[in-house]
Amino acid sequence: MPGEEHAPDAREFVGKARLEAFSDGVFAIAITLLVLDLAIPESGPALDRVLDAWPFYLAYVVSFLTIGGAWIAHTAITDRLARADLGLLRLNLLLLLVVAVLPFPTRLVAEGLDDVSGERVFVAMYGIALLGIRVLLYAFDTYARWEHLFGPGTIDEPDTVRRSILPVVAVYALAILIGLVWPAVAVAVYCAIAVVLVVPFGALRRVFTRRT
Amino acid sequence: MPGEEHAPDAREFVGKARLEAFSDGVFAIAITLLVLDLAIPESGPALDRVLDAWPFYLAYVVSFLTIGGAWIAHTAITDRLARADLGLLRLNLLLLLVVAVLPFPTRLVAEGLDDVSGERVFVAMYGIALLGIRVLLYAFDTYARWEHLFGPGTIDEPDTVRRSILPVVAVYALAILIGLVWPAVAVAVYCAIAVVLVVPFGALRRVFTRRT
Amino acid sequence: MPGEEHAPDAREFVGKARLEAFSDGVFAIAITLLVLDLAIPESGPALDRVLDAWPFYLAYVVSFLTIGGAWIAHTAITDRLARADLGLLRLNLLLLLVVAVLPFPTRLVAEGLDDVSGERVFVAMYGIALLGIRVLLYAFDTYARWEHLFGPGTIDEPDTVRRSILPVVAVYALAILIGLVWPAVAVAVYCAIAVVLVVPFGALRRVFTRRT
Amino acid sequence: MPGEEHAPDAREFVGKARLEAFSDGVFAIAITLLVLDLAIPESGPALDRVLDAWPFYLAYVVSFLTIGGAWIAHTAITDRLARADLGLLRLNLLLLLVVAVLPFPTRLVAEGLDDVSGERVFVAMYGIALLGIRVLLYAFDTYARWEHLFGPGTIDEPDTVRRSILPVVAVYALAILIGLVWPAVAVAVYCAIAVVLVVPFGALRRVFTRRT
Repeated sequence: MPGEEHAPDAREFVGKARLEAFSDGVFAIAITLLVLDLAIPESGPALDRVLDAWPFYLAYVVSFLTIGGAWIAHTAITDRLARADLGLLRLNLLLLLVVAVLPFPTRLVAEGLDDVSGERVFVAMYGIALLGIRVLLYAFDTYARWEHLFGPGTIDEPDTVRRSILPVVAVYALAILIGLVWPAVAVAVYCAIAVVLVVPFGALRRVFTRRT
Repeated sequence: MPGEEHAPDAREFVGKARLEAFSDGVFAIAITLLVLDLAIPESGPALDRVLDAWPFYLAYVVSFLTIGGAWIAHTAITDRLARADLGLLRLNLLLLLVVAVLPFPTRLVAEGLDDVSGERVFVAMYGIALLGIRVLLYAFDTYARWEHLFGPGTIDEPDTVRRSILPVVAVYALAILIGLVWPAVAVAVYCAIAVVLVVPFGALRRVFTRRT
Repeated sequence: MPGEEHAPDAREFVGKARLEAFSDGVFAIAITLLVLDLAIPESGPALDRVLDAWPFYLAYVVSFLTIGGAWIAHTAITDRLARADLGLLRLNLLLLLVVAVLPFPTRLVAEGLDDVSGERVFVAMYGIALLGIRVLLYAFDTYARWEHLFGPGTIDEPDTVRRSILPVVAVYALAILIGLVWPAVAVAVYCAIAVVLVVPFGALRRVFTRRT
Repeated sequence: MPGEEHAPDAREFVGKARLEAFSDGVFAIAITLLVLDLAIPESGPALDRVLDAWPFYLAYVVSFLTIGGAWIAHTAITDRLARADLGLLRLNLLLLLVVAVLPFPTRLVAEGLDDVSGERVFVAMYGIALLGIRVLLYAFDTYARWEHLFGPGTIDEPDTVRRSILPVVAVYALAILIGLVWPAVAVAVYCAIAVVLVVPFGALRRVFTRRT
């Protein structure tokens, strides 16, 4: 098969620049396509129409922050890469497949937030996509470490990414299960994780530490 | 949390190349998605259908120039960056969230320009998005200065960005308030700012100064 | 105003990398968004539905090749740039505005190719957009030359771009006028220019010259 | 014509960076736009609506992996380029034209998978697009070799890409013919090729070889 056969051992290790450029593109497009699903009800007073669309705004913000947080984590991993091999490119492609699909469950969950019967199914689908992104980020990091693709200066911090991703994976898995009974709780958990992953607590703490 | 925990002090300062690539992607996509909302009425003589869609053309041009102007300002700030930290990546993400959402109020305002009841609400939403972009650009610049992320040669020009952004913020805020009573005035102000921000007055002046 | 005021003389000359990255993004997105307007009739035998959509395929190919040809011309110009200034960024933004809007008249012209009354109006709009792209490419090149933004090795070939763009502009202008009477002729001209601009005649000629 | 005339011999050889950036953009956008066509039936119990949409999920995954595999092959070719000429830019544009159009037959095939009459037509269109991508990748590689555009260290592996692409082209051509009678078989073949092209068999084999 093309990608595989014409890639003998010396060819296996390709530059990481294309991987970063392509990934940045997919992350940027997926995060920006979310806006296409923002919509307000067709009829009623204008202010009510705008306010009634709150599930769409909520879903937009949570998905935007989640994809943005995944992009930051992806950047943190690829920054340490010395090179990429074909296996990493393909694993990256699977990760991007789930990132790029997120606008779909986002739309379903936004439409389903005022629909009792559909709510549980759509919230579960959404949670599975969020979980999949984190699991594949974990696999991406593990594979790169396994195959010695990281640069020399980064070996001494062996499993900070694993230590930090695993709790999020556990929380997502738990939220999916809880959401089968109380979908609103799962949605609240997804919001909370998105906010925690992106609001710059660390930076603020450092700012105040320096000042005093 | 991933992005945060696995980023000890040495890790906090990442290259700015990925930040620029991802931001360029989101700006470019948001500005290009605007075309999807251009539409003409379904029936009537072809020329009338094309001419009656003028609010869509106006909204397209104003939003295009506004996002373009924000991209130029973003470029002017990141050009001076020596490095980025996690806090800046996250602040950038909030800025991109508002930039990427702009096609949504653009669509509402274009559809609402011939609808008396909705006009005020939609024009106010649009103005708030425009204001948010400028406020977050200001925060982005302030944070970078605060955290000493700019390169050495740029410290000597301390607050030109602040001085230039603040009047625009004030004008946008005033226009939002005025728009609650006379929405057409607010729209005219948004057009004027977009044109002023992008038409190359300075370059033209320089050209003519050189000639004489 | 932000972009302008905080850009004193030393600041005026920015790197051209961001200009290229942003422009590549807008060109790539506009060219790819064209696919969203491909559609086939709702009912009828499958093969007929597919074949009846030929105006959409034609419009897709012509617009794709036209944007692609504009991207190649843009690359040829920016390759020679030593630096960019604020005026060039803004002129570039106007060029991208017309490039990014092309999917809109493309959709109108594809829908109008079987509609006698609308055909002339939509074909004229489409031609004006094609003309606008070439005129702004000409202005872009002229401004860069005027402001001495090109690198030293490129001054000796003074007006090849102008010489090559002006005939295309003239042909487009003529086709728009002819299209007001015979729209099919204008469409044929737009197709012909797109094919000529992208089919690698020169490369093929060189290949055969080398062989003999 | 612009691109051609103002490109004398010395100008013919342009950097490959823009070609890569533009191509990465189109690949990334085409692969991400696939999500816009994911949809579930309007009515029925939520779980049934989600499960009944399986043809859309299947089509999404196959097209995503196919575009991703084409991107990997494109990267493998351009990685070896020392430079690009105008002919290669134009050939690349034709390749991107087919890549960018793939979301269209993907949508048709997903909608047609439960429609007996349309199935054969749409599956054939889809297969022709997949075939076209591989044929143009082959032409892209051949042209670059023909015109001596590859770097010096890559000449010694003369036809691995051809050897690896040709079987895929043959399988696609065969599947298109079979699909005219049994469309389901063709779909199964397209799935199989997509999985084989992207699942990292080689990397896994290497991992296990090292371990033992």
